[in-house]
Amino acid sequence: MPKPIDFWFDFSSPYGYLASYRIDAIGEEFGRAVLWRPYLLGVVFKSSGQSPLVSQPMRGPYHLKDMQRTARRMRVPLVLPEGFPMATIAAARAFYWMEEQDPRRAKDLAKALYRAAFAQGRNITTAETVAEVGKEVGIDPAELQAGIGTPAVKERVKAETDTAIAQGVFGSPFFLID
Amino acid sequence: MPKPIDFWFDFSSPYGYLASYRIDAIGEEFGRAVLWRPYLLGVVFKSSGQSPLVSQPMRGPYHLKDMQRTARRMRVPLVLPEGFPMATIAAARAFYWMEEQDPRRAKDLAKALYRAAFAQGRNITTAETVAEVGKEVGIDPAELQAGIGTPAVKERVKAETDTAIAQGVFGSPFFLID
Repeated sequence: MPKPIDFWFDFSSPYGYLASYRIDAIGEEFGRAVLWRPYLLGVVFKSSGQSPLVSQPMRGPYHLKDMQRTARRMRVPLVLPEGFPMATIAAARAFYWMEEQDPRRAKDLAKALYRAAFAQGRNITTAETVAEVGKEVGIDPAELQAGIGTPAVKERVKAETDTAIAQGVFGSPFFLID
Repeated sequence: MPKPIDFWFDFSSPYGYLASYRIDAIGEEFGRAVLWRPYLLGVVFKSSGQSPLVSQPMRGPYHLKDMQRTARRMRVPLVLPEGFPMATIAAARAFYWMEEQDPRRAKDLAKALYRAAFAQGRNITTAETVAEVGKEVGIDPAELQAGIGTPAVKERVKAETDTAIAQGVFGSPFFLID
């Protein structure tokens, strides 16, 4: 059985959002499971010396055009949410809380969060909004909000981000295979 | 008649080198001429806040692997020349000096310079080496060296680099279409 593809992403990443539509189908095509691994790209920027694309001169304006062009080519909607680029620690915590119970539902939650942000333009920064989006895919919002606040889940997001840095992951999406 | 594709590149760029093998064929496929436009990426970095990929943490080591992987996929040789990333002002000047006389021969010179650097590992920084490479594609080395030193050609490289910045070009290769 071949090893899964690690799909590293940040919930604030438009290109990660676009990848979320395709990566599972690509995995299937090559007989690979895909392990979704949200992490905090902002923490990695401190190691890599980078900053959010949109705030960079020349590269920022270019990528605003490029992401729309890529979305049109993929025939998916793309809007930049209020407050973009936004903090995504609550979304990442929610994902890993759900994953420990049911990886498939965690993936559903990730897709719903990405679409809430980049298809509907919602600001998914707060635990309240994350819980609302969770509710839309059948997750109990009170449980989800409580889960986001647990020390184990907070540690998990930190540990995943450390793993990303240790493995040389510096973007979103970023794929590791074998 | 559709407008040509502008192919912006720096002679110190491994990805520009890789693109040099393919861009004319791609232009032909779409019925477009390709205008080769070397410029000085280092000058643009001052506007874009970027630095050479290889000197960046995390991104540098990644791209050293990625460029070799890309070269293998394209089945072309790739070595990093002595002194990489190197100054390429002499190479850019030589190109535009030749182009004013014969655009086709200027393209041959560009290909020869790229291959001298990234297939043979030669340091193409000095006017002497550029002239040597020119000689290998039938250009008179004394004339070429004299041409590199003319004010008109020096101005031309500056003007092209200014145009690149004005058009939002910030990488190599960088393609502008329509």
